[in-house]
Amino acid sequence: MPGKFFSERNLSFLLYEVFHADSLTEYPYFQDHSRENFDLVVDTASKMAHTLLRPYFEEMDRNPPTLENGRIKVHPSVRPFLEACGEGGWISAGSSFEIGGQQLPQMVTSSCSFIWAAANYSASVYPMLTSGAAGLIESFGSDELKQTYIPKMYSGQWQGTMALTEPQAGSSLTDITTSAEPLTPGCYRIRGQKIFISASDHDAVENIVHLMLAKIKGGPPGVKGISLFVVPRERVTDDGRLESNDVHVAGIFHKMGYRGCPIAQLNLGENDDCRGWLVGEPHKGLSYMFQMMNHARIEVGIGAAAIASAAYHASLDYALTRPQGRKVADKNPASPPVMIIEHPDVKRMLLFQRSVVEGSLSLLMQCAQYYDMRRCPDAATRERASLLLELLTPVAKSFPSEMGILSVSAALQCLGGYGYCDEFPIEQHYRDMRIHAIHEGTTGIHGLDLLGRKIVMADGKALRSFLEEVKADVEMSALYSVCLEYGKRLDEALQTLQRVTSHLVGIALQGDIERFLADATLYLEFFGLIAVAWQWLKQGIAAEKALGSSDSARDREFYAGKLQTMKYFFYYELPKILGLEKRLMESDGLTTEALAGVA
Amino acid sequence: MPGKFFSERNLSFLLYEVFHADSLTEYPYFQDHSRENFDLVVDTASKMAHTLLRPYFEEMDRNPPTLENGRIKVHPSVRPFLEACGEGGWISAGSSFEIGGQQLPQMVTSSCSFIWAAANYSASVYPMLTSGAAGLIESFGSDELKQTYIPKMYSGQWQGTMALTEPQAGSSLTDITTSAEPLTPGCYRIRGQKIFISASDHDAVENIVHLMLAKIKGGPPGVKGISLFVVPRERVTDDGRLESNDVHVAGIFHKMGYRGCPIAQLNLGENDDCRGWLVGEPHKGLSYMFQMMNHARIEVGIGAAAIASAAYHASLDYALTRPQGRKVADKNPASPPVMIIEHPDVKRMLLFQRSVVEGSLSLLMQCAQYYDMRRCPDAATRERASLLLELLTPVAKSFPSEMGILSVSAALQCLGGYGYCDEFPIEQHYRDMRIHAIHEGTTGIHGLDLLGRKIVMADGKALRSFLEEVKADVEMSALYSVCLEYGKRLDEALQTLQRVTSHLVGIALQGDIERFLADATLYLEFFGLIAVAWQWLKQGIAAEKALGSSDSARDREFYAGKLQTMKYFFYYELPKILGLEKRLMESDGLTTEALAGVA
Repeated sequence: MPGKFFSERNLSFLLYEVFHADSLTEYPYFQDHSRENFDLVVDTASKMAHTLLRPYFEEMDRNPPTLENGRIKVHPSVRPFLEACGEGGWISAGSSFEIGGQQLPQMVTSSCSFIWAAANYSASVYPMLTSGAAGLIESFGSDELKQTYIPKMYSGQWQGTMALTEPQAGSSLTDITTSAEPLTPGCYRIRGQKIFISASDHDAVENIVHLMLAKIKGGPPGVKGISLFVVPRERVTDDGRLESNDVHVAGIFHKMGYRGCPIAQLNLGENDDCRGWLVGEPHKGLSYMFQMMNHARIEVGIGAAAIASAAYHASLDYALTRPQGRKVADKNPASPPVMIIEHPDVKRMLLFQRSVVEGSLSLLMQCAQYYDMRRCPDAATRERASLLLELLTPVAKSFPSEMGILSVSAALQCLGGYGYCDEFPIEQHYRDMRIHAIHEGTTGIHGLDLLGRKIVMADGKALRSFLEEVKADVEMSALYSVCLEYGKRLDEALQTLQRVTSHLVGIALQGDIERFLADATLYLEFFGLIAVAWQWLKQGIAAEKALGSSDSARDREFYAGKLQTMKYFFYYELPKILGLEKRLMESDGLTTEALAGVA
Repeated sequence: MPGKFFSERNLSFLLYEVFHADSLTEYPYFQDHSRENFDLVVDTASKMAHTLLRPYFEEMDRNPPTLENGRIKVHPSVRPFLEACGEGGWISAGSSFEIGGQQLPQMVTSSCSFIWAAANYSASVYPMLTSGAAGLIESFGSDELKQTYIPKMYSGQWQGTMALTEPQAGSSLTDITTSAEPLTPGCYRIRGQKIFISASDHDAVENIVHLMLAKIKGGPPGVKGISLFVVPRERVTDDGRLESNDVHVAGIFHKMGYRGCPIAQLNLGENDDCRGWLVGEPHKGLSYMFQMMNHARIEVGIGAAAIASAAYHASLDYALTRPQGRKVADKNPASPPVMIIEHPDVKRMLLFQRSVVEGSLSLLMQCAQYYDMRRCPDAATRERASLLLELLTPVAKSFPSEMGILSVSAALQCLGGYGYCDEFPIEQHYRDMRIHAIHEGTTGIHGLDLLGRKIVMADGKALRSFLEEVKADVEMSALYSVCLEYGKRLDEALQTLQRVTSHLVGIALQGDIERFLADATLYLEFFGLIAVAWQWLKQGIAAEKALGSSDSARDREFYAGKLQTMKYFFYYELPKILGLEKRLMESDGLTTEALAGVA
């Protein structure tokens, strides 16, 4: 097991040299914090990753959860990890002091999530889910719900989940049928089935708290009739005991990867005795749930970038130490073999990975910065940041997830046959990675979200803000002799983005919604390449700036590596928009016709 | 387990409507055959696939080979399959009547390989390896070697392997150190280690026959000192018994996929008692082995296309029967859900897969046709076909292997969360597929082979012949109203190919070999897209031609599907050459510099 699964130097570069996380302490909400304090949090997360997570990375894969007498048994390392999360205040780290949280900026909590997910993705999911579920109760729940659930969840004793998907509905939440029938004020009888629910039962906690979507009988049809409930595995009686709430595990899914965390099918109300407590108002469940989903989508992006990071460092380690072959121009069999990192094709695969990992993480940090700006005293800044975050969420979820698959595949390829075998960790990363393009909305769903909703919302204001943000960095790049050239390339790409977007929106304006959205997945890929090129330009500018004033040889090497990786992205990845542009501008409707000859 | 893993209709379309396999019977070598006969062979292969292979597809994955007391135990279905292969003459199907073979064209044997690999890739490898190994003895071995080994191998009683790779050398065969010391004429003492040897020991056969590369002591250094040996696990004594030949299994590799076939590490001559018999002349081993490797490379391409085929049909089956969501323009939650095959993004993923599977198979059939042309009475035709086959071998190996990874990933995506779980076969296909970009030469090695060797060999004659072949089909397309447009696009792509190739060869002519070859892997991808676009144009022409004269509604649907998939390839895949062209024309040498900031 190679030691390194992320780069601390890169994290600190992004936090302070690119995104200036320390300046957040100027906002009143974050004023009790300091850079020292942020560093301490990140260091502690790293220590926990090394002691509580990484040692069980393989073991949790080889010994996946089992279903025994209706209960799911997980790896014994989960309980001490969740206890440590509770004791250290990690689950509530982003919450307000008032509710027992630490008011940490998302830039800092995202850094910690990234480290944990890189160490052991499956394990990292447990506290993240609880944090999101408790956050929903915190935002929309009654005082009674808050008092009953939040302390136990933030202490790591109770697990939170998000329970949306149903067998017949899949991605189509309109079609969920889990029902809620009023019993007493705020309390409902729940009946239904949920599938693919992560961490939805396990023996490392005392109780499970599902944040669940269901339809109150007699409500409006479709998504407008969806409400949000707290449905615990065991409910709290009036005298404070726990009693069964008629929530049963019907089965667990055997997954290709991400095997350390159970995904189960739940039966609710088999014995007519399952109760759920309404969160907020009836029929507003989906809009509430979006708070958690948006959070979880960013977390999926972080998880994907993190797995790609671990695979990258494993392949880099191998490439630095594995002798094989010679330079192509050296035909002398007597000359000693070189390390494979000297072969251009291996360098290309390493630069590709680095560009995906650090480009994705930069985009995720960008999103975290926009999220943290909701604490900015200036209302216009808050509104702008909120729109930008909405626009970028599908991109920040999908780019790392899709490109991460290719990135881990490149890591595996660097090791040749060894990469395909389980004595190295990369085959597991390859299997773990593949879930990310599926959970929290498939890539196809995010394509529709970006093009069909985010681009056109608020009369295109989010896109205009995005273009302004990128252009500001393009202008900045003109001051730097290396970055100048890449700023120009990005400026051209922005023009392409505008051209393609206008063309597609034109189809929408003609009313042909199906053709408008037919290639939304490709538009998402196209947009993602430009958004990450922007992030690389930002990193390039920060690196070029620092390179001139740095006294440390090690730092200069680091900055030179950043500039090299930026160049890689502009030379090898950004040109992919040319093929996508051609495709998107044709919009001939091939996939709006029926498929021929398949039945 | 869905029933369909390949399309018989497509196979017959390629064999007879695109490549006119029946016309091969005009060559004297194939004159005893007929289309009826070819059909019978393919039908029988399909029956065997359904009875002897597909039923064990999952089981062989869940119960991989084990090492017990130094011997490898494989799934019990392997033995009856190999016996059936022996009895039915399948292992020698391509060999001459003289040696007990059936003189079948490779177009037909490739079709059978494709069916078997689609049914159960791991199982299909056993007879394929024996066939290749016996073929080497047939071509280059002494009469004694032929008599000793070939009958037992063709009968399926003895397993053949190719034993090249060593721990310290990997892809760099120059550096192998397995040694051979002369004992008696033709017989050598062998010492060394081999790794990653497929089917290199198992209990479904009586003996294993390794076709092994080793260096005769005192020979020239590097690849010029490599000789080829037959090294059996058990050697035949003078009185015809089998006795141990000091070949030991040091371990088996635990692989992510392709788990039904063991891959082992071998120790040779631990007790100084391992003997090998020289095949052909000393120091010519690598050139002999290339016969088997080229064959195996095409087989890897077939295996990759086959796995992608099985995944495609599983996802198509799911998409045709899974209701979920509505058309994007339909906002009425009361309207019933549609089958997911109606969603444009799902159609895109299915067309993508079909374009990869059937485009790859067409390219492999093209290679088989060139191979079969070595039986053509006309010497100029033979020479041209041989050069074209050499040129296309790295492409026909790598395009299906690399694009197959994406194709199976798209299949998995069609099923959402279910695709990630083992109740459907696709997650296994996803794991099985990943080996193909590694074994029989990594994609990087094939990039170097294509650009560094095949493009420049014979003063570029192979490439010129390729351009002529493609242009002939472009001209043909002008006669067809649908294909016309795609012929034009292919013609433009050919100009791009020539432009990029000239540019790169120009760098080679300046003597900068490292920069010339730095992006050879991308050149391979670029070339592959154009080669497969060509195959789609060929298929399109055949379909458009047949569409006009067909009376069967089912056939017309099939041909319409072919035209639709051709269009897909030209709209969605071929434009990827634009980004690759931009990259390849820049050739700035980024990956010939050292990586910064990684140590």
